[in-house]
Amino acid sequence: MSWLSISPDSHFSIANIPFGIITTSSDATKRPAVAIGDYALDLKAFASAGGFSSCSEIEKHAGIFADESLNAFAALGRSFHRLVREYLQSVFSAETKIPQVLKDNERLRETALLKRSEIRNHLPLTIGDYTDFYAGKNHAFNVGALFRGPDNALQPNYTHLPVAYHGRASSVVISGTPIRRPWGQILKDAKAEPKVPVLSQCEKLDLELEMGMFICRENQLGHPIAIADAKDYIFGYVLMNDWSARDIQAWEYIPLGPFTSKNLGTAISAWVVLADALEGFKTAGMANDHAVLPYLEEKTKENCLDIQLEVEITTAKGDRTTISRSNSKHLLWSWPQMIAHHTITGCNLRPGDLLGSGTITGSGPGAEGCLLEQTQGGKMAIRLQGGEERKFLQDGDTVTIRGWAGQEGGLIGFGEVTGTVQAALPLF
Amino acid sequence: MSWLSISPDSHFSIANIPFGIITTSSDATKRPAVAIGDYALDLKAFASAGGFSSCSEIEKHAGIFADESLNAFAALGRSFHRLVREYLQSVFSAETKIPQVLKDNERLRETALLKRSEIRNHLPLTIGDYTDFYAGKNHAFNVGALFRGPDNALQPNYTHLPVAYHGRASSVVISGTPIRRPWGQILKDAKAEPKVPVLSQCEKLDLELEMGMFICRENQLGHPIAIADAKDYIFGYVLMNDWSARDIQAWEYIPLGPFTSKNLGTAISAWVVLADALEGFKTAGMANDHAVLPYLEEKTKENCLDIQLEVEITTAKGDRTTISRSNSKHLLWSWPQMIAHHTITGCNLRPGDLLGSGTITGSGPGAEGCLLEQTQGGKMAIRLQGGEERKFLQDGDTVTIRGWAGQEGGLIGFGEVTGTVQAALPLF
Repeated sequence: MSWLSISPDSHFSIANIPFGIITTSSDATKRPAVAIGDYALDLKAFASAGGFSSCSEIEKHAGIFADESLNAFAALGRSFHRLVREYLQSVFSAETKIPQVLKDNERLRETALLKRSEIRNHLPLTIGDYTDFYAGKNHAFNVGALFRGPDNALQPNYTHLPVAYHGRASSVVISGTPIRRPWGQILKDAKAEPKVPVLSQCEKLDLELEMGMFICRENQLGHPIAIADAKDYIFGYVLMNDWSARDIQAWEYIPLGPFTSKNLGTAISAWVVLADALEGFKTAGMANDHAVLPYLEEKTKENCLDIQLEVEITTAKGDRTTISRSNSKHLLWSWPQMIAHHTITGCNLRPGDLLGSGTITGSGPGAEGCLLEQTQGGKMAIRLQGGEERKFLQDGDTVTIRGWAGQEGGLIGFGEVTGTVQAALPLF
Repeated sequence: MSWLSISPDSHFSIANIPFGIITTSSDATKRPAVAIGDYALDLKAFASAGGFSSCSEIEKHAGIFADESLNAFAALGRSFHRLVREYLQSVFSAETKIPQVLKDNERLRETALLKRSEIRNHLPLTIGDYTDFYAGKNHAFNVGALFRGPDNALQPNYTHLPVAYHGRASSVVISGTPIRRPWGQILKDAKAEPKVPVLSQCEKLDLELEMGMFICRENQLGHPIAIADAKDYIFGYVLMNDWSARDIQAWEYIPLGPFTSKNLGTAISAWVVLADALEGFKTAGMANDHAVLPYLEEKTKENCLDIQLEVEITTAKGDRTTISRSNSKHLLWSWPQMIAHHTITGCNLRPGDLLGSGTITGSGPGAEGCLLEQTQGGKMAIRLQGGEERKFLQDGDTVTIRGWAGQEGGLIGFGEVTGTVQAALPLF
């Protein structure tokens, strides 16, 4: 419980304390903050007013809270993140033993405790590299079946290694960023010979429900990360919508994987939920049907996170429909396994690197993580509130993904990642 | 001709003036420089001593020469690069009209004109994203035939779009960086069922002869770059060796492309040869057998660069063998075409982004850009000077790629990209 009034349904309970980067209309300098209830605590203002002075371990690094990204904070490691989170929980606690820091400090509350409705969020970290995994087995099967038929849906490697590809770091955007319908090369008739593509507006624009994970520690090139150490490299998590142009993807992706179909934008939620905040929400992921190689073997089966996920489409008219409900446990591979595999040949990770889970589809209808699956490749339209139908996204549609762990009163939530589809621009 | 003594076989004639980032034993601060003959001109020392003060257009931006990377210089655009290059040519010219700047300024020559043998090079730009294309059609055919048979060697999309995949920016390293033989997942017997991989040291470690191109200008997300404008986004070029683990690649690459097999390191040469320096070496690339879509159409057929390329292997014993001779014109797609395609769905490029050409294989035996092709997947060993044979790289092998345009006395060269294979580390 906090002395600050926090609604029981807030994603940002005192049990959470997620980190982000903000600006305000009166101060355009990017700076770190944490979200709590309807507020954001401006950590730059808080630190410069001596908010951390009663904790010397934090105080000696307090300069990082004047940075324009969370990279330096992340790089200080999980024990430091834990210390800051617990200190801020003690500051906001109803039984705080340091009320002079904020609770009874009206002047600092006025300058540092900002209404979230009045701030603007920015990318929380400078992203060096972005990698997208494909660990959602239900999704991989469903999409593989559509692209290659059910017999070749999953490749023989799928259950032996976490399949992934490098994504595009420059096109990762913050929640709220509109997405322009792209132009691209499309093969309109896959059966015609010879195969001649056209340049067309994307007609199969899709969302992808994913989780993202930020790296907080670097390893040296040539030095793989042992799976037992992988947890120390995890800064925290965000929601992710990996906007995808399915018609462009189908034509371009063989043999080197998706490229321009995934370059148009990947949106993440604003507040990074620390790994520590989710320690109490470990659960078993999807079972593998055989043993994995030792470098991917974990001591626990409770290696995934129990995070409720949902996808909502809001039409241009304003009608809202929750089209999908899933959970981040529907992954064949855990985050530590992804890290261990990512680095097995020696790849170096750096603080600020972003790893995506791949699309997270649960079991059965209504749990699909993208429209491609839900409409069976555009064969079956889904019906939205207000009577409209969708096979893929239309201009003006807003996609909102939400996610949370825990129960009302102590929710550890991500808020949302949202974005609206804009009509294609005239080309040149 | 220069007042500085430059050997006629130097890659760094006065016609070149390539840019890099250096340190010296007496000053570990990274700083920009240009290479000329056996020297590097320290641009930080040169600028701070007023070396640019006789050119106000350069002088007003001279602060960028105190940066630790070339990103800010690149971002000033091609007209600025041209201005600086031409100014430095005028400084070094035998008939310089400003001898007081350097030629007759013994003190500045002593502090700013450094022997290249006594400097250390670093990555010239901070690389935001790295994309590797697959524009070497001969390579794509040869490798495709090995992986999928000659009938499926080139996919139907190959001649319609420049196939590419996102690479790993963190693992791009400067020439001279040793490469550790990786461990990874390998399917030893591709025909056995079920397919069960092992964790093994890479047994098919390969080089890839490529060119790299650095981007100097950004476009906004959602706004493709028209092919006619693409040249303005090109900062310059480097040689590239995209170290590759073929046995790991073969098992992992379906369906999302190469991942850990390409994460182990991608090496580039130290000196960025400006796009302007190569304007006189345009030549026709490989012919396409059909028209391309208008967004990929260029006004000229002289859209590739005429750069001689060669690959040398030096064994641990010191025996040197040139195993391949090729030319950067053996590409189906030009750099402007790659830029236009990269951004067609709206992907944003940023100064410092690196694009690779893909492996450049010429015509016929002895022109292969990698060992996989040259040994036909490891079936036919090649014989080196000194009598040793190679199917793939051995520990202690040094791979050196060299490249140059023009003729002796006026060479516009890249120097080299070199690296030595180190034995695998014990795993954990």
